[in-house]
Amino acid sequence: MKTPVTVLGLGAMGTALARAFLAAGHPTTVWNRTPGRSPELDSLGATRAATAGEAVAAAELVVVCLLVDDTVRTTLDGLDLTGRTIVNLTNSTPGQARATADRISAAGARYLDGGIMAVPVMIGGPAAFIFYSGAQAAFEQHTADLSVLGRPAFVGADPGLAALHDIALLSAMYGMIGGTQHALALAGSEQLPAVGFTNEFLMPWLTAMLGSLLPRMAKDLDDGPAPGAAGSNLAMQSAAYGNLIEASVAQGVDPAMLVPMGELLRKAVEAGHGDADLSAAVQLLRTAD
Amino acid sequence: MKTPVTVLGLGAMGTALARAFLAAGHPTTVWNRTPGRSPELDSLGATRAATAGEAVAAAELVVVCLLVDDTVRTTLDGLDLTGRTIVNLTNSTPGQARATADRISAAGARYLDGGIMAVPVMIGGPAAFIFYSGAQAAFEQHTADLSVLGRPAFVGADPGLAALHDIALLSAMYGMIGGTQHALALAGSEQLPAVGFTNEFLMPWLTAMLGSLLPRMAKDLDDGPAPGAAGSNLAMQSAAYGNLIEASVAQGVDPAMLVPMGELLRKAVEAGHGDADLSAAVQLLRTAD
Repeated sequence: MKTPVTVLGLGAMGTALARAFLAAGHPTTVWNRTPGRSPELDSLGATRAATAGEAVAAAELVVVCLLVDDTVRTTLDGLDLTGRTIVNLTNSTPGQARATADRISAAGARYLDGGIMAVPVMIGGPAAFIFYSGAQAAFEQHTADLSVLGRPAFVGADPGLAALHDIALLSAMYGMIGGTQHALALAGSEQLPAVGFTNEFLMPWLTAMLGSLLPRMAKDLDDGPAPGAAGSNLAMQSAAYGNLIEASVAQGVDPAMLVPMGELLRKAVEAGHGDADLSAAVQLLRTAD
Repeated sequence: MKTPVTVLGLGAMGTALARAFLAAGHPTTVWNRTPGRSPELDSLGATRAATAGEAVAAAELVVVCLLVDDTVRTTLDGLDLTGRTIVNLTNSTPGQARATADRISAAGARYLDGGIMAVPVMIGGPAAFIFYSGAQAAFEQHTADLSVLGRPAFVGADPGLAALHDIALLSAMYGMIGGTQHALALAGSEQLPAVGFTNEFLMPWLTAMLGSLLPRMAKDLDDGPAPGAAGSNLAMQSAAYGNLIEASVAQGVDPAMLVPMGELLRKAVEAGHGDADLSAAVQLLRTAD
Protein backbone atom coordinates (compact mmCIF):
# COMPACT_ATOMS: atom_id res chain seq x y z
CA MET A 1 0.00 0.00 0.00
CA LYS A 2 1.16 3.52 -0.71
CA THR A 3 2.06 5.72 2.25
CA PRO A 4 -1.03 7.36 3.79
CA VAL A 5 -0.82 11.13 3.68
CA THR A 6 -2.72 14.09 5.10
CA VAL A 7 -3.09 17.43 3.30
CA LEU A 8 -3.98 20.51 5.36
CA GLY A 9 -5.34 23.38 3.28
CA LEU A 10 -7.33 23.08 0.06
CA GLY A 11 -6.61 26.31 -1.75
CA ALA A 12 -5.63 26.02 -5.41
CA MET A 13 -2.22 24.59 -4.51
CA GLY A 14 -3.34 22.35 -1.64
CA THR A 15 -6.06 20.89 -3.85
CA ALA A 16 -3.51 20.18 -6.59
CA LEU A 17 -1.27 18.43 -4.05
CA ALA A 18 -4.16 16.27 -2.77
CA ARG A 19 -5.19 15.38 -6.35
CA ALA A 20 -1.63 14.28 -7.16
CA PHE A 21 -1.46 12.02 -4.08
CA LEU A 22 -4.88 10.53 -4.89
CA ALA A 23 -3.92 9.99 -8.54
CA ALA A 24 -0.82 8.11 -7.40
CA GLY A 25 -2.89 5.85 -5.11
CA HIS A 26 -1.98 7.33 -1.72
CA PRO A 27 -4.72 7.05 0.95
CA THR A 28 -5.29 10.79 1.40
CA THR A 29 -6.99 12.61 4.23
CA VAL A 30 -7.82 16.27 3.64
CA TRP A 31 -8.85 19.16 5.82
CA ASN A 32 -9.71 22.77 5.11
CA ARG A 33 -10.75 25.49 7.54
CA THR A 34 -13.84 26.20 5.42
CA PRO A 35 -15.53 22.79 5.04
CA GLY A 36 -16.59 21.35 1.68
CA ARG A 37 -13.83 23.04 -0.36
CA SER A 38 -12.83 21.27 -3.61
CA PRO A 39 -15.70 18.73 -3.70
CA GLU A 40 -14.08 16.92 -6.67
CA LEU A 41 -11.61 15.40 -4.18
CA ASP A 42 -14.41 13.28 -2.69
CA SER A 43 -15.06 11.43 -5.93
CA LEU A 44 -11.31 10.86 -6.25
CA GLY A 45 -11.36 9.00 -2.93
CA ALA A 46 -10.21 11.61 -0.39
CA THR A 47 -11.18 11.19 3.26
CA ARG A 48 -12.41 14.42 4.85
CA ALA A 49 -11.35 15.16 8.41
CA ALA A 50 -13.64 17.34 10.52
CA THR A 51 -10.75 19.02 12.37
CA ALA A 52 -7.06 19.66 11.75
CA GLY A 53 -6.30 17.43 14.75
CA GLU A 54 -8.26 14.56 13.28
CA ALA A 55 -6.46 15.04 9.97
CA VAL A 56 -3.03 15.00 11.62
CA ALA A 57 -3.97 11.84 13.54
CA ALA A 58 -4.79 10.05 10.26
CA ALA A 59 -1.26 9.86 8.80
CA GLU A 60 2.40 10.07 9.77
CA LEU A 61 3.13 12.21 6.68
CA VAL A 62 1.36 15.57 6.93
CA VAL A 63 1.64 18.07 4.08
CA VAL A 64 0.69 21.62 5.01
CA CYS A 65 -0.26 24.19 2.37
CA LEU A 66 -2.07 27.10 4.00
CA LEU A 67 -2.52 30.74 3.11
CA VAL A 68 0.36 32.34 5.02
CA ASP A 69 2.80 31.55 7.80
CA ASP A 70 0.41 32.88 10.47
CA THR A 71 -2.21 30.37 9.37
CA VAL A 72 0.30 27.56 9.82
CA ARG A 73 0.91 28.63 13.40
CA THR A 74 -2.74 29.02 14.34
CA THR A 75 -3.64 25.72 12.66
CA LEU A 76 -0.88 23.53 14.14
CA ASP A 77 -0.35 25.06 17.57
CA GLY A 78 -1.78 22.87 20.30
CA LEU A 79 -2.23 19.77 18.10
CA ASP A 80 -0.58 16.47 19.05
CA LEU A 81 2.19 16.19 16.46
CA THR A 82 4.17 13.45 18.20
CA GLY A 83 5.94 11.16 15.74
CA ARG A 84 4.65 13.03 12.72
CA THR A 85 6.58 14.34 9.70
CA ILE A 86 5.32 17.83 8.93
CA VAL A 87 6.08 18.98 5.36
CA ASN A 88 5.24 22.69 5.19
CA LEU A 89 4.77 23.92 1.63
CA THR A 90 3.16 27.23 2.64
CA ASN A 91 4.87 30.33 1.20
CA SER A 92 7.25 31.64 3.82
CA THR A 93 10.50 33.45 4.43
CA PRO A 94 13.64 31.61 5.57
CA GLY A 95 13.21 33.13 9.03
CA GLN A 96 9.59 32.00 9.28
CA ALA A 97 10.61 28.50 8.19
CA ARG A 98 13.25 28.32 10.93
CA ALA A 99 10.80 29.49 13.58
CA THR A 100 8.22 26.95 12.44
CA ALA A 101 10.87 24.23 12.48
CA ASP A 102 11.68 25.07 16.10
CA ARG A 103 8.04 24.89 17.17
CA ILE A 104 7.37 21.65 15.26
CA SER A 105 10.49 19.97 16.62
CA ALA A 106 9.57 21.03 20.14
CA ALA A 107 6.21 19.33 19.61
CA GLY A 108 7.95 16.02 18.88
CA ALA A 109 7.67 15.94 15.08
CA ARG A 110 10.19 16.02 12.24
CA TYR A 111 10.04 19.13 10.07
CA LEU A 112 10.61 19.62 6.37
CA ASP A 113 10.12 23.01 4.80
CA GLY A 114 9.38 23.15 1.09
CA GLY A 115 9.30 25.72 -1.69
CA ILE A 116 7.14 24.81 -4.68
CA MET A 117 8.56 25.99 -8.01
CA ALA A 118 5.36 25.48 -9.98
CA VAL A 119 1.84 26.76 -10.40
CA PRO A 120 -0.98 24.42 -9.34
CA VAL A 121 -1.68 23.03 -12.85
CA MET A 122 1.94 21.82 -13.05
CA ILE A 123 1.78 19.75 -9.84
CA GLY A 124 2.27 16.05 -10.54
CA GLY A 125 3.71 16.82 -13.98
CA PRO A 126 7.28 16.62 -15.27
CA ALA A 127 7.96 20.39 -15.08
CA ALA A 128 7.22 20.81 -11.35
CA PHE A 129 10.00 20.80 -8.86
CA ILE A 130 10.06 21.45 -5.14
CA PHE A 131 12.87 22.51 -2.82
CA TYR A 132 13.07 20.85 0.59
CA SER A 133 15.20 21.59 3.64
CA GLY A 134 15.23 20.47 7.27
CA ALA A 135 15.05 16.89 8.59
CA GLN A 136 17.13 14.95 6.10
CA ALA A 137 16.14 11.50 7.42
CA ALA A 138 12.47 12.38 6.96
CA PHE A 139 13.20 13.58 3.43
CA GLU A 140 15.02 10.36 2.59
CA GLN A 141 12.24 8.22 4.02
CA HIS A 142 9.60 10.08 2.01
CA THR A 143 11.46 10.96 -1.20
CA ALA A 144 9.31 8.60 -3.29
CA ASP A 145 6.10 9.92 -1.71
CA LEU A 146 7.07 13.54 -2.28
CA SER A 147 8.16 12.80 -5.85
CA VAL A 148 4.47 12.33 -6.67
CA LEU A 149 4.08 16.12 -6.41
CA GLY A 150 7.13 17.15 -8.43
CA ARG A 151 10.83 16.49 -8.69
CA PRO A 152 12.24 17.01 -5.16
CA ALA A 153 15.56 18.79 -4.47
CA PHE A 154 16.93 18.64 -0.92
CA VAL A 155 19.05 21.73 -0.30
CA GLY A 156 20.19 21.38 3.31
CA ALA A 157 19.48 20.64 6.94
CA ASP A 158 18.91 24.33 7.71
CA PRO A 159 15.11 24.54 7.38
CA GLY A 160 15.35 28.08 5.96
CA LEU A 161 17.19 27.02 2.82
CA ALA A 162 14.19 25.80 0.82
CA ALA A 163 12.46 29.17 1.21
CA LEU A 164 15.72 30.93 0.37
CA HIS A 165 16.09 29.00 -2.88
CA ASP A 166 12.43 29.58 -3.66
CA ILE A 167 12.53 33.36 -3.25
CA ALA A 168 15.87 33.61 -5.05
CA LEU A 169 14.56 31.81 -8.15
CA LEU A 170 11.28 33.72 -8.11
CA SER A 171 13.19 37.01 -7.84
CA ALA A 172 15.29 36.08 -10.86
CA MET A 173 12.16 35.07 -12.77
CA TYR A 174 10.41 38.35 -12.03
CA GLY A 175 13.48 40.30 -13.10
CA MET A 176 13.40 38.47 -16.40
CA ILE A 177 9.65 38.98 -16.73
CA GLY A 178 9.95 42.71 -16.03
CA GLY A 179 12.69 43.09 -18.62
CA THR A 180 10.75 41.18 -21.26
CA GLN A 181 7.57 43.11 -20.50
CA HIS A 182 9.47 46.36 -21.04
CA ALA A 183 10.95 44.99 -24.28
CA LEU A 184 7.50 43.91 -25.51
CA ALA A 185 6.05 47.31 -24.61
CA LEU A 186 8.80 48.93 -26.71
CA ALA A 187 8.10 46.57 -29.62
CA GLY A 188 4.41 47.38 -29.28
CA SER A 189 5.15 51.11 -29.40
CA GLU A 190 6.09 50.58 -33.08
CA GLN A 191 3.34 48.01 -33.74
CA LEU A 192 5.84 45.18 -34.14
CA PRO A 193 4.09 41.79 -33.81
CA ALA A 194 5.08 40.36 -30.39
CA VAL A 195 5.39 36.73 -31.49
CA GLY A 196 7.79 37.45 -34.35
CA PHE A 197 9.90 39.81 -32.26
CA THR A 198 9.99 37.27 -29.43
CA ASN A 199 10.83 34.19 -31.49
CA GLU A 200 13.28 35.85 -33.85
CA PHE A 201 15.14 38.12 -31.44
CA LEU A 202 14.11 38.21 -27.77
CA MET A 203 14.34 34.49 -26.98
CA PRO A 204 17.66 33.83 -28.80
CA TRP A 205 19.18 36.98 -27.29
CA LEU A 206 18.17 36.20 -23.71
CA THR A 207 19.24 32.59 -24.11
CA ALA A 208 22.67 33.73 -25.32
CA MET A 209 23.02 36.35 -22.56
CA LEU A 210 21.91 33.86 -19.91
CA GLY A 211 24.59 31.44 -21.07
CA SER A 212 27.37 34.02 -21.27
CA LEU A 213 26.71 36.48 -18.43
CA LEU A 214 25.40 34.30 -15.63
CA PRO A 215 28.21 31.70 -15.32
CA ARG A 216 30.75 34.53 -15.48
CA MET A 217 29.00 36.53 -12.75
CA ALA A 218 28.75 33.45 -10.51
CA LYS A 219 32.40 32.54 -11.00
CA ASP A 220 33.50 36.12 -10.24
CA LEU A 221 31.45 36.02 -7.04
CA ASP A 222 33.06 32.79 -5.85
CA ASP A 223 36.64 33.41 -7.00
CA GLY A 224 36.91 37.17 -7.27
CA PRO A 225 36.80 38.94 -10.63
CA ALA A 226 39.10 37.70 -13.40
CA PRO A 227 41.31 40.72 -14.19
CA GLY A 228 40.90 42.30 -17.60
CA ALA A 229 38.41 39.76 -18.90
CA ALA A 230 35.41 42.08 -18.72
CA GLY A 231 33.77 42.85 -22.04
CA SER A 232 32.12 46.01 -20.80
CA ASN A 233 32.85 47.46 -17.38
CA LEU A 234 30.29 49.08 -15.07
CA ALA A 235 31.39 52.64 -15.96
CA MET A 236 30.75 51.98 -19.65
CA GLN A 237 27.42 50.33 -18.89
CA SER A 238 26.36 53.13 -16.57
CA ALA A 239 27.22 55.77 -19.20
CA ALA A 240 25.22 53.95 -21.89
CA TYR A 241 22.28 53.09 -19.65
CA GLY A 242 20.68 56.53 -19.79
CA ASN A 243 20.00 55.97 -23.50
CA LEU A 244 17.66 53.08 -22.61
CA ILE A 245 15.58 55.23 -20.28
CA GLU A 246 15.57 58.25 -22.58
CA ALA A 247 14.56 56.16 -25.59
CA SER A 248 11.83 54.36 -23.62
CA VAL A 249 10.28 57.62 -22.45
CA ALA A 250 10.40 58.95 -26.02
CA GLN A 251 8.58 55.80 -27.18
CA GLY A 252 5.86 56.27 -24.58
CA VAL A 253 6.98 53.37 -22.42
CA ASP A 254 7.13 53.77 -18.63
CA PRO A 255 10.81 53.29 -17.67
CA ALA A 256 9.91 52.04 -14.16
CA MET A 257 11.33 48.55 -14.77
CA LEU A 258 14.67 50.03 -15.87
CA VAL A 259 15.21 52.63 -13.17
CA PRO A 260 16.65 50.51 -10.31
CA MET A 261 19.40 49.04 -12.52
CA GLY A 262 20.41 52.55 -13.58
CA GLU A 263 20.65 53.50 -9.89
CA LEU A 264 22.63 50.38 -9.05
CA LEU A 265 25.14 51.01 -11.86
CA ARG A 266 25.49 54.65 -10.80
CA LYS A 267 26.04 53.63 -7.15
CA ALA A 268 28.59 51.02 -8.21
CA VAL A 269 30.59 53.58 -10.20
CA GLU A 270 30.38 56.11 -7.35
CA ALA A 271 31.64 53.46 -4.94
CA GLY A 272 34.75 53.02 -7.09
CA HIS A 273 33.69 49.90 -9.01
CA GLY A 274 33.68 51.54 -12.45
CA ASP A 275 36.36 49.17 -13.74
CA ALA A 276 34.60 46.13 -12.28
CA ASP A 277 32.10 43.75 -13.82
CA LEU A 278 28.50 42.82 -12.96
CA SER A 279 29.48 40.74 -9.94
CA ALA A 280 30.56 43.90 -8.10
CA ALA A 281 27.00 45.21 -8.26
CA VAL A 282 25.73 42.04 -6.55
CA GLN A 283 27.76 42.97 -3.48
CA LEU A 284 26.09 46.39 -3.37
CA LEU A 285 22.68 44.73 -3.02
CA ARG A 286 23.82 43.15 0.23
CA THR A 287 22.82 45.70 2.86
CA ALA A 288 23.53 43.65 5.94
CA ASP A 289 27.18 42.66 5.47
CA MET B 1 39.54 43.77 -53.99
CA LYS B 2 37.41 44.08 -50.89
CA THR B 3 35.17 47.12 -50.59
CA PRO B 4 37.07 50.13 -49.23
CA VAL B 5 35.58 51.39 -45.97
CA THR B 6 35.95 54.38 -43.69
CA VAL B 7 35.48 54.22 -39.92
CA LEU B 8 34.77 57.46 -38.05
CA GLY B 9 35.43 57.22 -34.33
CA LEU B 10 38.05 55.07 -32.62
CA GLY B 11 36.66 54.47 -29.18
CA ALA B 12 36.66 50.88 -27.93
CA MET B 13 33.85 49.91 -30.33
CA GLY B 14 35.04 51.91 -33.35
CA THR B 15 38.52 50.45 -32.95
CA ALA B 16 37.03 46.93 -32.85
CA LEU B 17 35.07 47.66 -36.04
CA ALA B 18 38.18 48.95 -37.84
CA ARG B 19 40.19 45.91 -36.71
CA ALA B 20 37.52 43.56 -38.05
CA PHE B 21 37.50 45.29 -41.47
CA LEU B 22 41.31 45.22 -41.60
CA ALA B 23 41.42 41.56 -40.58
CA ALA B 24 39.02 40.75 -43.41
CA GLY B 25 41.20 42.56 -45.94
CA HIS B 26 39.16 45.73 -46.48
CA PRO B 27 41.16 48.87 -47.34
CA THR B 28 40.26 50.86 -44.24
CA THR B 29 40.53 54.58 -43.62
CA VAL B 30 40.12 55.71 -40.03
CA TRP B 31 39.58 59.06 -38.34
CA ASN B 32 39.25 60.09 -34.72
CA ARG B 33 38.72 63.57 -33.30
CA THR B 34 41.73 63.08 -31.02
CA PRO B 35 44.57 62.05 -33.37
CA GLY B 36 46.74 59.00 -32.78
CA ARG B 37 44.09 56.94 -31.02
CA SER B 38 44.50 53.13 -31.23
CA PRO B 39 48.02 53.08 -32.73
CA GLU B 40 47.82 49.30 -33.25
CA LEU B 41 45.59 50.00 -36.27
CA ASP B 42 48.57 51.47 -38.15
CA SER B 43 50.52 48.21 -38.10
CA LEU B 44 47.36 46.41 -39.26
CA GLY B 45 47.33 48.58 -42.40
CA ALA B 46 44.84 51.35 -41.61
CA THR B 47 45.09 54.66 -43.46
CA ARG B 48 44.72 57.67 -41.17
CA ALA B 49 42.74 60.64 -42.42
CA ALA B 50 43.57 64.06 -41.03
CA THR B 51 39.98 65.27 -41.09
CA ALA B 52 36.53 63.71 -41.09
CA GLY B 53 35.96 65.17 -44.57
CA GLU B 54 39.08 63.50 -45.91
CA ALA B 55 37.98 60.22 -44.33
CA VAL B 56 34.51 60.42 -45.90
CA ALA B 57 36.07 61.19 -49.28
CA ALA B 58 38.16 58.02 -49.12
CA ALA B 59 35.33 55.44 -49.37
CA GLU B 60 31.71 55.09 -50.45
CA LEU B 61 30.97 52.99 -47.34
CA VAL B 62 31.33 55.09 -44.18
CA VAL B 63 30.80 53.48 -40.77
CA VAL B 64 30.20 55.97 -37.96
CA CYS B 65 30.72 54.99 -34.32
CA LEU B 66 31.00 58.12 -32.20
CA LEU B 67 30.31 58.88 -28.56
CA VAL B 68 26.71 60.12 -28.71
CA ASP B 69 24.18 61.35 -31.23
CA ASP B 70 25.31 64.98 -30.80
CA THR B 71 28.82 64.01 -31.86
CA VAL B 72 27.42 62.46 -35.04
CA ARG B 73 25.74 65.74 -35.91
CA THR B 74 28.73 67.96 -35.21
CA THR B 75 31.06 65.58 -37.07
CA LEU B 76 29.01 65.05 -40.25
CA ASP B 77 27.26 68.42 -40.66
CA GLY B 78 28.75 70.42 -43.52
CA LEU B 79 30.73 67.51 -45.03
CA ASP B 80 30.19 66.50 -48.65
CA LEU B 81 28.32 63.21 -48.29
CA THR B 82 27.12 62.99 -51.90
CA GLY B 83 26.83 59.39 -53.09
CA ARG B 84 28.01 57.95 -49.79
CA THR B 85 26.42 55.19 -47.69
CA ILE B 86 26.48 56.28 -44.07
CA VAL B 87 26.16 53.40 -41.58
CA ASN B 88 25.65 54.94 -38.15
CA LEU B 89 26.41 52.51 -35.31
CA THR B 90 26.49 55.19 -32.60
CA ASN B 91 24.14 54.50 -29.65
CA SER B 92 20.94 56.42 -30.28
CA THR B 93 17.21 56.47 -29.72
CA PRO B 94 14.75 55.69 -32.54
CA GLY B 95 13.87 59.38 -32.76
CA GLN B 96 17.51 60.43 -33.03
CA ALA B 97 18.06 57.82 -35.75
CA ARG B 98 15.13 59.18 -37.76
CA ALA B 99 16.39 62.76 -37.45
CA THR B 100 19.88 61.72 -38.52
CA ALA B 101 18.42 59.80 -41.47
CA ASP B 102 16.60 62.94 -42.61
CA ARG B 103 19.76 65.06 -42.46
CA ILE B 104 21.94 62.44 -44.21
CA SER B 105 19.38 61.87 -46.97
CA ALA B 106 19.10 65.64 -47.50
CA ALA B 107 22.89 65.69 -47.95
CA GLY B 108 22.61 63.21 -50.83
CA ALA B 109 23.72 60.01 -49.05
CA ARG B 110 22.00 56.74 -48.23
CA TYR B 111 21.50 56.10 -44.51
CA LEU B 112 21.60 52.91 -42.49
CA ASP B 113 21.18 53.01 -38.74
CA GLY B 114 22.59 50.14 -36.74
CA GLY B 115 22.36 48.73 -33.22
CA ILE B 116 25.30 46.59 -32.14
CA MET B 117 24.29 43.67 -29.90
CA ALA B 118 27.80 42.91 -28.71
CA VAL B 119 30.65 44.28 -26.64
CA PRO B 120 33.83 45.27 -28.52
CA VAL B 121 35.68 42.00 -27.91
CA MET B 122 32.88 40.11 -29.65
CA ILE B 123 33.07 42.14 -32.90
CA GLY B 124 34.08 39.97 -35.84
CA GLY B 125 33.25 36.81 -33.91
CA PRO B 126 30.34 34.39 -34.26
CA ALA B 127 28.34 35.72 -31.28
CA ALA B 128 28.07 39.34 -32.49
CA PHE B 129 24.99 40.50 -34.27
CA ILE B 130 23.92 43.92 -35.46
CA PHE B 131 20.49 45.32 -36.25
CA TYR B 132 20.16 47.56 -39.31
CA SER B 133 17.30 49.69 -40.56
CA GLY B 134 16.90 52.37 -43.21
CA ALA B 135 18.04 52.23 -46.83
CA GLN B 136 17.36 48.63 -47.81
CA ALA B 137 19.19 48.82 -51.16
CA ALA B 138 22.32 50.04 -49.38
CA PHE B 139 22.00 47.20 -46.88
CA GLU B 140 21.65 44.63 -49.65
CA GLN B 141 24.64 46.04 -51.54
CA HIS B 142 26.82 45.93 -48.42
CA THR B 143 25.51 42.85 -46.58
CA ALA B 144 28.74 40.92 -47.15
CA ASP B 145 30.86 43.88 -46.05
CA LEU B 146 28.82 44.43 -42.90
CA SER B 147 28.85 40.69 -42.11
CA VAL B 148 32.55 41.11 -41.31
CA LEU B 149 31.52 42.92 -38.09
CA GLY B 150 28.84 40.49 -36.95
CA ARG B 151 25.73 38.73 -38.23
CA PRO B 152 23.51 41.45 -39.74
CA ALA B 153 19.72 41.57 -39.26
CA PHE B 154 17.76 44.08 -41.35
CA VAL B 155 14.60 45.03 -39.46
CA GLY B 156 12.90 47.58 -41.69
CA ALA B 157 13.03 50.68 -43.87
CA ASP B 158 12.07 52.92 -40.94
CA PRO B 159 15.52 54.06 -39.75
CA GLY B 160 14.37 54.08 -36.10
CA LEU B 161 13.76 50.35 -35.95
CA ALA B 162 17.35 49.22 -35.41
CA ALA B 163 17.63 51.44 -32.32
CA LEU B 164 14.23 50.23 -31.14
CA HIS B 165 15.29 46.58 -31.37
CA ASP B 166 18.58 47.43 -29.71
CA ILE B 167 17.07 49.15 -26.68
CA ALA B 168 14.34 46.51 -26.38
CA LEU B 169 16.83 43.65 -26.18
CA LEU B 170 19.13 45.55 -23.84
CA SER B 171 16.18 46.33 -21.56
CA ALA B 172 15.25 42.65 -21.43
CA MET B 173 18.87 41.75 -20.72
CA TYR B 174 19.16 44.23 -17.86
CA GLY B 175 15.91 42.94 -16.36
CA MET B 176 17.36 39.45 -16.38
CA ILE B 177 20.66 40.71 -14.97
CA GLY B 178 18.90 42.57 -12.15
CA GLY B 179 16.86 39.53 -11.23
CA THR B 180 19.87 37.24 -11.22
CA GLN B 181 21.92 39.75 -9.22
CA HIS B 182 19.18 39.82 -6.60
CA ALA B 183 19.03 36.01 -6.60
CA LEU B 184 22.80 35.78 -6.19
CA ALA B 185 22.73 38.33 -3.38
CA LEU B 186 20.13 36.17 -1.61
CA ALA B 187 22.24 33.04 -2.14
CA GLY B 188 25.23 34.95 -0.78
CA SER B 189 23.27 35.95 2.32
CA GLU B 190 23.41 32.28 3.36
CA GLN B 191 26.95 31.72 2.05
CA LEU B 192 25.79 29.42 -0.74
CA PRO B 193 28.49 29.05 -3.42
CA ALA B 194 27.34 31.09 -6.42
CA VAL B 195 28.58 28.69 -9.10
CA GLY B 196 26.77 25.66 -7.68
CA PHE B 197 23.55 27.59 -7.10
CA THR B 198 23.74 29.04 -10.62
CA ASN B 199 24.52 25.83 -12.47
CA GLU B 200 22.22 23.58 -10.49
CA PHE B 201 19.20 25.82 -10.07
CA LEU B 202 19.30 29.37 -11.47
CA MET B 203 20.24 28.56 -15.08
CA PRO B 204 17.84 25.60 -15.53
CA TRP B 205 15.02 27.53 -13.86
CA LEU B 206 15.41 30.67 -15.98
CA THR B 207 15.81 28.59 -19.13
CA ALA B 208 12.55 26.78 -18.33
CA MET B 209 10.70 29.99 -17.44
CA LEU B 210 11.99 31.74 -20.57
CA GLY B 211 10.67 28.90 -22.70
CA SER B 212 7.27 28.71 -21.00
CA LEU B 213 6.38 32.31 -20.07
CA LEU B 214 7.74 34.35 -22.95
CA PRO B 215 6.02 32.67 -25.94
CA ARG B 216 2.75 32.68 -23.99
CA MET B 217 3.05 36.38 -23.16
CA ALA B 218 3.87 37.25 -26.79
CA LYS B 219 0.97 35.20 -28.15
CA ASP B 220 -1.45 36.80 -25.68
CA LEU B 221 -0.26 40.24 -26.80
CA ASP B 222 -0.86 39.48 -30.48
CA ASP B 223 -4.08 37.46 -30.19
CA GLY B 224 -5.61 38.53 -26.91
CA PRO B 225 -5.36 36.34 -23.80
CA ALA B 226 -6.38 32.70 -24.07
CA PRO B 227 -9.28 32.36 -21.60
CA GLY B 228 -8.71 30.17 -18.57
CA ALA B 229 -5.27 29.00 -19.62
CA ALA B 230 -3.39 31.07 -17.04
CA GLY B 231 -1.45 29.09 -14.47
CA SER B 232 -1.38 31.90 -11.97
CA ASN B 233 -3.29 35.14 -12.49
CA LEU B 234 -2.05 38.63 -11.60
CA ALA B 235 -4.10 38.80 -8.38
CA MET B 236 -2.47 35.61 -7.09
CA GLN B 237 0.96 36.82 -8.13
CA SER B 238 0.44 40.24 -6.57
CA ALA B 239 -0.70 38.68 -3.27
CA ALA B 240 2.35 36.39 -3.15
CA TYR B 241 4.84 39.02 -4.29
CA GLY B 242 5.11 40.75 -0.91
CA ASN B 243 6.75 37.62 0.48
CA LEU B 244 9.69 38.12 -1.89
CA ILE B 245 10.32 41.65 -0.69
CA GLU B 246 9.77 40.81 2.99
CA ALA B 247 12.08 37.80 2.80
CA SER B 248 14.77 39.77 0.95
CA VAL B 249 14.78 42.54 3.54
CA ALA B 250 14.99 39.95 6.31
CA GLN B 251 18.01 38.41 4.55
CA GLY B 252 19.74 41.79 4.35
CA VAL B 253 19.26 42.16 0.61
CA ASP B 254 18.15 45.51 -0.84
CA PRO B 255 14.76 44.84 -2.53
CA ALA B 256 15.25 47.70 -5.02
CA MET B 257 15.32 45.38 -8.03
CA LEU B 258 12.00 43.80 -6.98
CA VAL B 259 10.01 46.91 -6.13
CA PRO B 260 8.81 48.05 -9.60
CA MET B 261 7.31 44.65 -10.44
CA GLY B 262 5.38 44.69 -7.16
CA GLU B 263 4.04 48.12 -8.09
CA LEU B 264 3.14 46.97 -11.60
CA LEU B 265 1.27 43.92 -10.31
CA ARG B 266 -0.59 46.07 -7.76
CA LYS B 267 -1.54 48.62 -10.44
CA ALA B 268 -2.70 45.84 -12.75
CA VAL B 269 -4.98 44.38 -10.08
CA GLU B 270 -6.30 47.85 -9.17
CA ALA B 271 -7.05 48.47 -12.85
CA GLY B 272 -9.25 45.37 -12.90
CA HIS B 273 -6.77 42.94 -14.46
CA GLY B 274 -6.58 40.59 -11.45
CA ASP B 275 -7.87 37.66 -13.48
CA ALA B 276 -5.54 38.41 -16.39
CA ASP B 277 -2.09 37.08 -17.17
CA LEU B 278 1.32 38.73 -17.57
CA SER B 279 0.51 40.22 -20.97
CA ALA B 280 -2.00 42.57 -19.35
CA ALA B 281 0.81 44.18 -17.37
CA VAL B 282 2.71 44.94 -20.59
CA GLN B 283 -0.14 47.19 -21.68
CA LEU B 284 0.16 49.15 -18.42
CA LEU B 285 3.77 50.02 -19.27
CA ARG B 286 2.55 51.83 -22.38
CA THR B 287 2.01 55.39 -21.21
CA ALA B 288 1.44 57.05 -24.56
CA ASP B 289 -1.47 55.05 -26.01
